[in-house]
Amino acid sequence: MGDILTSRKQDYSQWYNDLILKGNLAEHSAVRGCMVIKPYGFALWENMRDQLDRMFKETGHQNAYFPLFIPKSFLSKEAAHVEGFAKECAVVTHSRLKNDPNGNGIIVDPESELEEELIVRPTSETIIWNTYKGWIQSYRDLPILVNQWANVVRWEMRTRLFLRTAEFLWQEGHTAHATKEEAIAETKQMLEVYATFAEEYMAMPVIRGVKTESERFAGAEDTYCIEALMQDGKALQAGTSHFLGQNFAKAFDVKFADKDNKMEYVWATSWGVSTRLIGALVMAHSDDEGLVLPPKIAPLQVVIVPIFNKDAAATEKINAKAHELMQELRAKGIRVKFDNDDTKRPGWKFAEYEMQGVPVRIALGARDIENNQAEVARRDTREKESYSLDNIIASVEQLLEDIQMNMFHKALTFRNEHTTRVNSWDEFVAVLNEKTGFVAAHWDGTAETEDKIKEMTKATIRCIPLDNIKEEGSCVLTGKPSKQRVLFAKAY
Amino acid sequence: MGDILTSRKQDYSQWYNDLILKGNLAEHSAVRGCMVIKPYGFALWENMRDQLDRMFKETGHQNAYFPLFIPKSFLSKEAAHVEGFAKECAVVTHSRLKNDPNGNGIIVDPESELEEELIVRPTSETIIWNTYKGWIQSYRDLPILVNQWANVVRWEMRTRLFLRTAEFLWQEGHTAHATKEEAIAETKQMLEVYATFAEEYMAMPVIRGVKTESERFAGAEDTYCIEALMQDGKALQAGTSHFLGQNFAKAFDVKFADKDNKMEYVWATSWGVSTRLIGALVMAHSDDEGLVLPPKIAPLQVVIVPIFNKDAAATEKINAKAHELMQELRAKGIRVKFDNDDTKRPGWKFAEYEMQGVPVRIALGARDIENNQAEVARRDTREKESYSLDNIIASVEQLLEDIQMNMFHKALTFRNEHTTRVNSWDEFVAVLNEKTGFVAAHWDGTAETEDKIKEMTKATIRCIPLDNIKEEGSCVLTGKPSKQRVLFAKAY
Repeated sequence: MGDILTSRKQDYSQWYNDLILKGNLAEHSAVRGCMVIKPYGFALWENMRDQLDRMFKETGHQNAYFPLFIPKSFLSKEAAHVEGFAKECAVVTHSRLKNDPNGNGIIVDPESELEEELIVRPTSETIIWNTYKGWIQSYRDLPILVNQWANVVRWEMRTRLFLRTAEFLWQEGHTAHATKEEAIAETKQMLEVYATFAEEYMAMPVIRGVKTESERFAGAEDTYCIEALMQDGKALQAGTSHFLGQNFAKAFDVKFADKDNKMEYVWATSWGVSTRLIGALVMAHSDDEGLVLPPKIAPLQVVIVPIFNKDAAATEKINAKAHELMQELRAKGIRVKFDNDDTKRPGWKFAEYEMQGVPVRIALGARDIENNQAEVARRDTREKESYSLDNIIASVEQLLEDIQMNMFHKALTFRNEHTTRVNSWDEFVAVLNEKTGFVAAHWDGTAETEDKIKEMTKATIRCIPLDNIKEEGSCVLTGKPSKQRVLFAKAY
Repeated sequence: MGDILTSRKQDYSQWYNDLILKGNLAEHSAVRGCMVIKPYGFALWENMRDQLDRMFKETGHQNAYFPLFIPKSFLSKEAAHVEGFAKECAVVTHSRLKNDPNGNGIIVDPESELEEELIVRPTSETIIWNTYKGWIQSYRDLPILVNQWANVVRWEMRTRLFLRTAEFLWQEGHTAHATKEEAIAETKQMLEVYATFAEEYMAMPVIRGVKTESERFAGAEDTYCIEALMQDGKALQAGTSHFLGQNFAKAFDVKFADKDNKMEYVWATSWGVSTRLIGALVMAHSDDEGLVLPPKIAPLQVVIVPIFNKDAAATEKINAKAHELMQELRAKGIRVKFDNDDTKRPGWKFAEYEMQGVPVRIALGARDIENNQAEVARRDTREKESYSLDNIIASVEQLLEDIQMNMFHKALTFRNEHTTRVNSWDEFVAVLNEKTGFVAAHWDGTAETEDKIKEMTKATIRCIPLDNIKEEGSCVLTGKPSKQRVLFAKAY
């Protein structure tokens, strides 16, 4: 530690890469496009995962586990689906290695070629719907509300830690329903779970919306999404929830007998968020000093740093008080560490915990104790204040809540300031390139115009917001009539 | 449900397969050798995983995540290691599918062949030690105490649900130490964690021991293990903890500067348990009526089944009382379900929850309430008793503890009765084939004799127990001198 980060202004992209490495979240591995999630990064993921898991269970979902491999023929059964994933998948073709008879070391045994190639799952709709076929006979077997926490592989050519990696961790919910209405309600419910999680736990405001046809998941009838805004004014898709209609039920012939004993295809949804959320979290809040993590999901919420001098009696007093504080904070359920490593100086530790984004730092020296106080620093604003030791526990609890709220409001203000309504093409281009952020503009509703705008500006339609106000207007590019604005942005 | 299981006596192996399916734990998938873990089975795994995870964290370990893929060249770096895994691995050779120009559907794009083949991890020592090389410079970076929860693939030809599948879920701990002594202490500590978990949570007594050289993990200097006994008298290796010496540090050139600034190779351990534990759990306790699950890890600990009659007022009373009980039990942290589905009869439900191994069933009818009592059935002994409603909550709490203890003691008694000291070859063969179980016999210490015994009897040396009493004797096969007995058994 102690290294200085590239600043956001200097090079945002480099700042992000530096921060992931220096914040001890993850690093590149020896396998192209695959990352190693380090213990600190994984502890952050565990907190996010566990909270999402609780929210899934509260909405009636159960976890299960399906195979890593998907037979090639399964992937091909839903036409749009295979089209979407064929170009980026890891294909298993053999099952054995052997010693090269020509002495060239270990080679793949050509005799172990598989009858049918297996694809490492890029997503599991096909293998799961093939399984559901055996689980569903009648309406009594519905709904099926299942989620899976798993690793998936998409052979991305240009990868970035957390944002886009060949292998990533995610959850994928896959539900089966007797009616279209129920499936749509489920799709929307899970979008709302994601939005609540992003806003209340990640302190990251999101737009709830629906994708245009071109941006839909391969095989979906409708893709709902939450979109967040990063500090460089680019948008990031943070989660998606798909209404799959009867597409996969038809591809895998999954029917049920309804109450009148009539056979019907089953209705489906799928929904997922991934370790990409960590990238979003970092880019939404962090600064040039390091990570800024929201208290609710920070691996460590409070760090106590002792300020030792050479006086052994004072050291003993500091240690005793720090231990007392640690125990009291822990009793309140606060994740706290007392860093009494005496080989490192306080200033070095301050910088290290700032880099790691620990929300609250308590510094405690001999004179502090004499004055019955401690110096408390909050990571989000970097303000310091002296707290009386008499009520420091309650004050720190309150401070953690304040930080959580402040981070959300700061991000919300930034987003509001970076959401611009434009009515002309010149304005559209100028805002995208200079002010950046979301641009609310009229669009004629055609994929052709959408493509053209993307080509000309690199901006895509992030979503049609769910709470959109209907408003007559004319398309920002073609001038053709439009019934509502949509949100454009450059995006990750 | 309602189907009758094959009995253990009739066909133990079929009983096991039936039970995994009818107990709703898992099923075969469309992918050869890979299973689907169903929601009920996964809830069981979650309880086991979460408890193990707590125990790992209490002993100072952190979780991290490493890539799914291992470059072929990495696997080859440790000679014994590649020898152990080469014959059963899934090899990724391509990264793209495409439409066959000849119209034969989707094919693997030959132009997407990888420069170096990737192996789907059968275990992660190689990729992890390649990573640790970047993490370790000096003794200050040690120890590294990391665990990973992951899926792994071993291309087994003969698979059985949970016991042996091509893909399985597990945890693998990988630690790095400055001294040999510390690494050995870690190896033994984690074995003890596994043993404690097996005995206290799974109610499954285990022998703590060390493997002979022939049975060691590929790349280990010593493999410690816990061995459990199944109801058919066969042993099952339930967990292993390996002292890896400096083998992987040497293979990946991982050195550290010690306190005197001298460069040394790092010492390593690895340890793992897997979803195989679920197979062990099932075979250790279950009976001809279905699963018998220990309360501490059962997905559902108590089920309340109402006995409705046609009287609406009585139904209302039963519902009210059942809800009250459910809430009181939940407040005690007990996992409880009130099954008020009125399309199923009580008898059907009784059989279903017996099949699923729910430890305690409370049946509640109108007359019970009049008499201020409920009928409580325990799954392990299938005994029923009337409990006064006045103190039923405390009684059920106590009953859950009794069941946990009783299951352990029953399994322990079975194991003690099926552990036999033998002193002659005839006795050895007779016990193995008739009485079955562990056979404690003298062995001359050579791999040759070990192999011969395996060939002749199918029995292997399960382990040399850690608490073995040294005792002079002569080998049961060769008559050569021996210094201690070892435990033989036929095994899963």
